[in-house]
Amino acid sequence: MTTAAPPLKDELDIVIPTIRNLDFLEMWRPFFQPYHLIIVQDGDPTKTIMVPDGFDYELYNRNDINKMLGPKSSCISFKDSACRCFGYMVSKKKYIYTIDDDCFVAKNPSGNDINALEQHIKNLLCPSTPYFFNTLYDPFADGADYVRGYPFSLREGVPTAVSHGLWLNIPDYDAPTQLVKPLERNTRYVDAVMTIPKGTLFPMCGMNLAFDRDLIGPAMYFGLMGDGQPIGRYDDMWAGWCIKVICDHLGLGVKTGLPYIYHSKASNPFVNLKKEYHGIFWQEEIIPFFQAITLPKDCKTVQQCYIELSKHVKDKLGKIDGYFDKLADAMVTWIEAWDELNPPKA
Amino acid sequence: MTTAAPPLKDELDIVIPTIRNLDFLEMWRPFFQPYHLIIVQDGDPTKTIMVPDGFDYELYNRNDINKMLGPKSSCISFKDSACRCFGYMVSKKKYIYTIDDDCFVAKNPSGNDINALEQHIKNLLCPSTPYFFNTLYDPFADGADYVRGYPFSLREGVPTAVSHGLWLNIPDYDAPTQLVKPLERNTRYVDAVMTIPKGTLFPMCGMNLAFDRDLIGPAMYFGLMGDGQPIGRYDDMWAGWCIKVICDHLGLGVKTGLPYIYHSKASNPFVNLKKEYHGIFWQEEIIPFFQAITLPKDCKTVQQCYIELSKHVKDKLGKIDGYFDKLADAMVTWIEAWDELNPPKA
Repeated sequence: MTTAAPPLKDELDIVIPTIRNLDFLEMWRPFFQPYHLIIVQDGDPTKTIMVPDGFDYELYNRNDINKMLGPKSSCISFKDSACRCFGYMVSKKKYIYTIDDDCFVAKNPSGNDINALEQHIKNLLCPSTPYFFNTLYDPFADGADYVRGYPFSLREGVPTAVSHGLWLNIPDYDAPTQLVKPLERNTRYVDAVMTIPKGTLFPMCGMNLAFDRDLIGPAMYFGLMGDGQPIGRYDDMWAGWCIKVICDHLGLGVKTGLPYIYHSKASNPFVNLKKEYHGIFWQEEIIPFFQAITLPKDCKTVQQCYIELSKHVKDKLGKIDGYFDKLADAMVTWIEAWDELNPPKA
Repeated sequence: MTTAAPPLKDELDIVIPTIRNLDFLEMWRPFFQPYHLIIVQDGDPTKTIMVPDGFDYELYNRNDINKMLGPKSSCISFKDSACRCFGYMVSKKKYIYTIDDDCFVAKNPSGNDINALEQHIKNLLCPSTPYFFNTLYDPFADGADYVRGYPFSLREGVPTAVSHGLWLNIPDYDAPTQLVKPLERNTRYVDAVMTIPKGTLFPMCGMNLAFDRDLIGPAMYFGLMGDGQPIGRYDDMWAGWCIKVICDHLGLGVKTGLPYIYHSKASNPFVNLKKEYHGIFWQEEIIPFFQAITLPKDCKTVQQCYIELSKHVKDKLGKIDGYFDKLADAMVTWIEAWDELNPPKA
């Protein structure tokens, strides 16, 4: 029904976590140059990150994070792309798009470059439909609508908080699957956007992700990963479980599907296995935990929901490993830091 | 992971409801001729339905239905394609494919004819994944798998009971949408099959539908529609709500997506509005009713589930309209007739 995606130039920041020069931006220039970039430099803060000319950006390294957050900087991961969530916190815009620096412009089946950002904006500006499945997928796509039998009372939809994009070429596989299928490439272009139904969890990948910061920002915490932590590569998964439970509670929508980016290079499966090892076991208990959570009715803001969630994490997941005690504390610290940098508007 | 779809020639019947000569079969000949057809003739039983040469079929008209079921024939609709479910009942095969006689062979984006039946068989033979969403859609499709973060304990999946196919050209819209968008055509080929998550209802269309009769057959009742009833065009919707609730309860999967057929001609929206009129109101109460149903643990067979469901229908929906009392009774009659024609195997 809706087709145009206004550029929202003054309302969107692009957040990029990185440890290297951002040459990949050259390919994105026609699409990203109009926007402001927030670069979160991971690893050695003395290293200089080169950004191609002509981009408007601010860059934060670990020293900046420590200075700005003080002791609360403990909630921001180090030596893990989970550090990107610091960028969500310092942004002052309504929308965030985050992308990995090994992701390039993909082509659609007609051979044209895909403007990923435009599709994300479209996804975020169109309502979601979490309460009933539409078999022709996004009813707001061009030439589509609700099919026969879709209840009319549900056609208004709900506001969309999250738009999860996909990846051509290197699929986002876990280490065991990478090891088993080293040659697998994703070449299937699925021309669809869909709402993930209420009550259904999904594996949210941070590689190509957009969200409405006003609606869900404070829940987009990527957890404690990397340096000094027993786990990595579950940062986006953790955020995905948390935001889904909170979106379901608050009546917000989460979409997945288009746009695709081109993921250029598989990360090392042996390194990944080391990072994922604990997560592979833990998620078997974490998923049922999130599936069973009911947030109380008096949790009406994202912050309230998130603090409530942190209590559940401490109570229920603390038994699995002491890590979850630390994580629950970090969730609270994250919200405190968020509120400090983002004081309630008058 | 699985790619081959064995033809299952001795295990599948094709059920076609019709009021006219089956010329449309000519186009399907390469795909359907190896299979047995069950033709359910609707309307005037004295009319002769011509079937192209070379097809193996049995044909039932209203007189046959009345003779075979006696007083129980009251549960089979007349002057409505809902009569097709009689074909499900008389089949002795494990799988059913049902298709409307205004549906033709569609082409994929490469311009090749789509073998809809082969894709349905593939869908039915591969497990479903109703407990967690896989962002790359069907993990059993060629070149696809479960993505990072998909719990390993859920990767075995569950048996697939239903495969719901889609339609290019004329989309399956309700009368109001047909009236508002008379020119809309579906040209979007979405190359995906997905499991409808547990707890999520969907609008099941009977135009291009396959199912495992052994797993879910007795719940594939298309209700009381058409002649003498206050409603039409909700036959497949009704069956869809019932089968989804029962599949969720029994741990069975329901898939939607590929294959596409080419739907040639929109039905008259004015006639459709008359048929749908009550349903448009009623479904606003029916959907929450189905969303709230919990079947008791001791319902372990489809029949037990269905009888239990009929009691809920009588209790809760009977208040909306006396029609639902009749429908609840017909649901029981349907199961009695099913069991009579399909006595438990020794």
